[in-house]
Amino acid sequence: MTQRRFLYLFAGWIFAMLPNAAFSDEGMWLFNNPPKKILKERYGFEPTAEWLDHVQKSSVRFNTGGSGSFVSADGLVMTNHHVGLSALQKLSSKGKDYVKDGFYAKSLEEEFKAVDEELNVLIEIVDVTDKVKAAVKPGTTGEAAFSARRAVIAKIEEESEKETKLRSNVITLYQGGQYHLYRFKRYTDVRLVMAPEQQVAFFGGDPDNFAYPRYDLDMCFFRVYEDGKPAKVPHYLKWSKAGAGKDELVFVSGHPGHTDRLNTVAELEYLRDIGYPFLLQRLNRLEVSLSIYSAYGQEEERKAKDMLFGIANSRKARMGGLEGLQDPAIMARKREQEKKLRDAASSNPDLKDVADAWDTIAAVQKVRAANIRRYQMLEGGAAFNTGLFGIARTLYRGAEEFAKPNEDRLSEFGESDRKSLELKLFSKRPIYPDFELHKLSDSLSWMCEVLGYETPVVQKVLAGKSPRERAAELLNGTKLTDVAERKKLYEGGKEAVAASKDSLIELAKIVDKESRAVRKIIENQVEEPKRQAYDKIARAKFAVEGTSTYPDATFTLRLSYGTCKGYEEAGKQIPFETTMAGLYERSAEKGNRPPFDLPKLWFDRKDKLNLKTPFNFVCTADIIGGNSGSPVVNKAGEVVGLIFDGNIQSLVWDFVYTEGQARAVSVSSPAMIESLRAVYDAGPLADELVNGKR
Amino acid sequence: MTQRRFLYLFAGWIFAMLPNAAFSDEGMWLFNNPPKKILKERYGFEPTAEWLDHVQKSSVRFNTGGSGSFVSADGLVMTNHHVGLSALQKLSSKGKDYVKDGFYAKSLEEEFKAVDEELNVLIEIVDVTDKVKAAVKPGTTGEAAFSARRAVIAKIEEESEKETKLRSNVITLYQGGQYHLYRFKRYTDVRLVMAPEQQVAFFGGDPDNFAYPRYDLDMCFFRVYEDGKPAKVPHYLKWSKAGAGKDELVFVSGHPGHTDRLNTVAELEYLRDIGYPFLLQRLNRLEVSLSIYSAYGQEEERKAKDMLFGIANSRKARMGGLEGLQDPAIMARKREQEKKLRDAASSNPDLKDVADAWDTIAAVQKVRAANIRRYQMLEGGAAFNTGLFGIARTLYRGAEEFAKPNEDRLSEFGESDRKSLELKLFSKRPIYPDFELHKLSDSLSWMCEVLGYETPVVQKVLAGKSPRERAAELLNGTKLTDVAERKKLYEGGKEAVAASKDSLIELAKIVDKESRAVRKIIENQVEEPKRQAYDKIARAKFAVEGTSTYPDATFTLRLSYGTCKGYEEAGKQIPFETTMAGLYERSAEKGNRPPFDLPKLWFDRKDKLNLKTPFNFVCTADIIGGNSGSPVVNKAGEVVGLIFDGNIQSLVWDFVYTEGQARAVSVSSPAMIESLRAVYDAGPLADELVNGKR
Repeated sequence: MTQRRFLYLFAGWIFAMLPNAAFSDEGMWLFNNPPKKILKERYGFEPTAEWLDHVQKSSVRFNTGGSGSFVSADGLVMTNHHVGLSALQKLSSKGKDYVKDGFYAKSLEEEFKAVDEELNVLIEIVDVTDKVKAAVKPGTTGEAAFSARRAVIAKIEEESEKETKLRSNVITLYQGGQYHLYRFKRYTDVRLVMAPEQQVAFFGGDPDNFAYPRYDLDMCFFRVYEDGKPAKVPHYLKWSKAGAGKDELVFVSGHPGHTDRLNTVAELEYLRDIGYPFLLQRLNRLEVSLSIYSAYGQEEERKAKDMLFGIANSRKARMGGLEGLQDPAIMARKREQEKKLRDAASSNPDLKDVADAWDTIAAVQKVRAANIRRYQMLEGGAAFNTGLFGIARTLYRGAEEFAKPNEDRLSEFGESDRKSLELKLFSKRPIYPDFELHKLSDSLSWMCEVLGYETPVVQKVLAGKSPRERAAELLNGTKLTDVAERKKLYEGGKEAVAASKDSLIELAKIVDKESRAVRKIIENQVEEPKRQAYDKIARAKFAVEGTSTYPDATFTLRLSYGTCKGYEEAGKQIPFETTMAGLYERSAEKGNRPPFDLPKLWFDRKDKLNLKTPFNFVCTADIIGGNSGSPVVNKAGEVVGLIFDGNIQSLVWDFVYTEGQARAVSVSSPAMIESLRAVYDAGPLADELVNGKR
Repeated sequence: MTQRRFLYLFAGWIFAMLPNAAFSDEGMWLFNNPPKKILKERYGFEPTAEWLDHVQKSSVRFNTGGSGSFVSADGLVMTNHHVGLSALQKLSSKGKDYVKDGFYAKSLEEEFKAVDEELNVLIEIVDVTDKVKAAVKPGTTGEAAFSARRAVIAKIEEESEKETKLRSNVITLYQGGQYHLYRFKRYTDVRLVMAPEQQVAFFGGDPDNFAYPRYDLDMCFFRVYEDGKPAKVPHYLKWSKAGAGKDELVFVSGHPGHTDRLNTVAELEYLRDIGYPFLLQRLNRLEVSLSIYSAYGQEEERKAKDMLFGIANSRKARMGGLEGLQDPAIMARKREQEKKLRDAASSNPDLKDVADAWDTIAAVQKVRAANIRRYQMLEGGAAFNTGLFGIARTLYRGAEEFAKPNEDRLSEFGESDRKSLELKLFSKRPIYPDFELHKLSDSLSWMCEVLGYETPVVQKVLAGKSPRERAAELLNGTKLTDVAERKKLYEGGKEAVAASKDSLIELAKIVDKESRAVRKIIENQVEEPKRQAYDKIARAKFAVEGTSTYPDATFTLRLSYGTCKGYEEAGKQIPFETTMAGLYERSAEKGNRPPFDLPKLWFDRKDKLNLKTPFNFVCTADIIGGNSGSPVVNKAGEVVGLIFDGNIQSLVWDFVYTEGQARAVSVSSPAMIESLRAVYDAGPLADELVNGKR
């Protein structure tokens, strides 16, 4: 055993070298509050209002959880393969596996309509902070405050939608410090244009996931249609044939999903001690359970593929995040930042009322810890791991909620989101009986473990049967696999649902009281006091640090910036980009064994490829899950790359931005063109990218 | 979706048809209390004392956790491939993978010595119940009782060993109702003779594990040596060329590891609600963690293989067990049995003192639940998942314990087991730095999750570092990879250990106080009261049901019996045996994809095989984990098969024997001979089996 090996292995992972934030490329900035000053001072670049507006309206949100962008005037959308994965999975069936085999539509006629995809483009942002805050009278707490806020938000959203016909959502920023109304254009006729084989899109699989150097062609192209024709989009990004240069300033415009950077230390400790461990326990169990199912055969593997990918991906990301939370250096820094802010607040007479905010948040974590398992199992649906339960619950609750005034409904039944809800509810995505049984049996068994076998709600759910027996009974007794049946119940409303003997509708009914009760606890005793406390902390932060800052990620559009540069790891210099030659080398080095094997086509076409073509590259732009599929653009607003990952060291970005080694990872624009032409015979698509039109 | 499919899928798993025990082949019988009456009445067979003695002394225990038997006068031992797996793994190295490629020694010279294998043969059983019970004065409880019993057992063992030179262990039977002294002959020169490729030994992998019909050549042959020559063993089993016939009576002689059949309902509920869920949580985490490591490459896969196999195997077995505990039908039966016994006891004046036993056991489960996580993490070592920690702890504690009188030591440092301890301590099994780091990092992180990050012992272990950083530090700072260093510390005793600056010795020291403290709680407040209570329950059982019964499994030799017969599942009749033709059919049906692929040799030699040869078969004999490798013999005492598994329905045998569908699964004796001759060119070994000598 060489002693050094441990050291180097470890050195590769160090999260140290925490930067001085003032000199780092930190920030997921709001488009209505971009980092103009920093960009000018550090990079001498001043984005104009037009530049910002153009990039914003060229950006696309995939409601399944990713980002994308328009890359031609004819509605062509670029995103990651792993963002398109769920669409590919839904279009596949036995013997027709677009995930494994890839897809290319040679003509518009061959472009397949995705089953239930919805894309959103952000058209406008309106600050409604005052309006929202005014609705919650000072001193109001708990349910009263929560309901009052929910009501005013529903009203704002509904009015906005009526007025603009745009999907309208009020977004909570700074954990409650500000409220902005976002208006989106919706696209629901989304067609598949091109996807490579998952083997090359996700080359290196789990071992290389979040690793760098990297060699993934993680791209996928869709096209949005309107009135049955390719949509003429007013904004799209031009293409850079050259790609990103070393030390070049680049921008990422995308939808980071969630960060916890403004969290107090008490809340981070909750995540470290309760939140993440419970989540990982679930992910580990699901990963094992789905792997078991996949091992039964090729068809089972196909059916479970996108779900298993998502779970393993989350698991690796969360492990990395937890590693950060368990790192005393990171927590010490958080403690120090918090102390500074608390000290500053306490010495400012205007911020007297802020002092108790941290203690409030700490106290709330205890309520959260005591209820989170029950909340996740029942309200989160973790106990009922079949998409059919989600459908049943939407129908059951919808009958009740849609009968109420918009302001009084549970938030997910808000009028402004109704079309999106219906799109999902009536989705024709395939449902496989044996797969649903496998998942539901296991989750019912896990429910017994987590909530306690003798707990009344568990006994009600099991109805005197074993988890497996009950799962079979529930799935045998439902007709919700049939979309027509769902429509009948949805349109029939309260009466139809009440009369239904469908086993899953009945299950939704059985758990509804307990589920709503625990949701109320979380909303009124956790979310509401937290929101009020974070509102105070945000005020302190603005007072002390100024308003030139960015809120935590909220799966809404943000602008990040950074430099294309490598880093040092374990004494070695990691270059900022890899090449196509490297892909073949990595595969050979790993004996061409899965997950390092390449599709046959890539061996057949190797001679046609310019192996010097840049493949993947890294930059310091601040991203997180949800940014997948974001375009990387240069100062001219041209696409130089496509974000698809962060490296291992970036997994701590959930809590703190560091740039010593942490990097965002992208596919380079030249790699996309080169592979489209030389491997996939997709010259017309390459031409469309380069020319910006069909 | 066909509605029927769910039903059938479910029907295949049903645990129902709980048998009437009086007419079933239940029981893991003691060799000194065999089921003579039942065998005579039901099967008209009366095993003689000689028959029993011969089978007993032909049986072999693998101390790594399995069973085996002598099958030639020249010390040839038959067991399962998965029992030999750890030995195969330890003999392998980079580029020399006996697990994957198999092994056959054409001559004695080619027979490799296993690294640290110990086989035990049971020579004699002495009932020492009265002696042990007399040492614990009536009314003594807790630590006083536990220590008194521990002391008398240590004394009995030491005296026996001195007198007979045989390894001597006092075994607790009926959870404390009886104590028997077992005397074993030890074999430590154990050499590898033959192993097939794991691919065919474990054909079907996890999906087919615990499944039936089945097609696994799960066999492995070793030879014990004495004085450098093949041992001449006085007892060995003759071979049956014909194998087992339909409806034939057969016997299984092996070492079932652990069952919970005598457990009270309260203890089963503990297992259902705390014990199994926590174990499964750990197994899921380990399975994911080791799968991640394995995916990095061929060599990593090789290094993790035996551990990953063991974990996935346990996971599947435990999932099946938990499914039984969560089945209301099974628990209802347990409740009913318990009620009957309690009622009978309360109406018998001689059993007055028994009445509180069930409540005592119920009360004790609360203490157990409150301490088990800490116990498993610290004393069980789950927090320190590297074999090097076990070595460090043995050295650290050994220095202290071996200085005490034998009766005062922790049980694992008893004089009678010292040679076995040294064999393991000085084992030259390979240790891989990167693999140890992977495991230790993950387990330290899990320790934070389970015990709480801020817990003092956790903070002491982490020493101000993150789990990964601390794992690297610990592994960089130890020399225990070197066997000579271990010997130095072992021989140097207290002084040498106290002076050692070895990082892992220091870790053992850091946790020792807390670890011993929680062990004391479990021993004195859980095990001791349980033992006294179960002693009472055993008395009640004997009084009500007679002494013609068997104790729960204890990884000591037991005799089971049963009939070779198929069963009905999902409306289909499953025949009792499969054939070699079925192996090829199953592989083809699954597209020859892993884990249903076959070694190349099996395709090359297909024409030479008689495809009608019976391959695997099932019988109703009562087995459990630990029975792996047990011989299946006919009335003539000839080997007809080799136990290697139970089917899915048998997983509930941990708690209750059922025989509607539950079956033990074996390799048939003809399959072993046929494959040795036609596939492996191992005619001489086949001849030795058939002739009973070289």
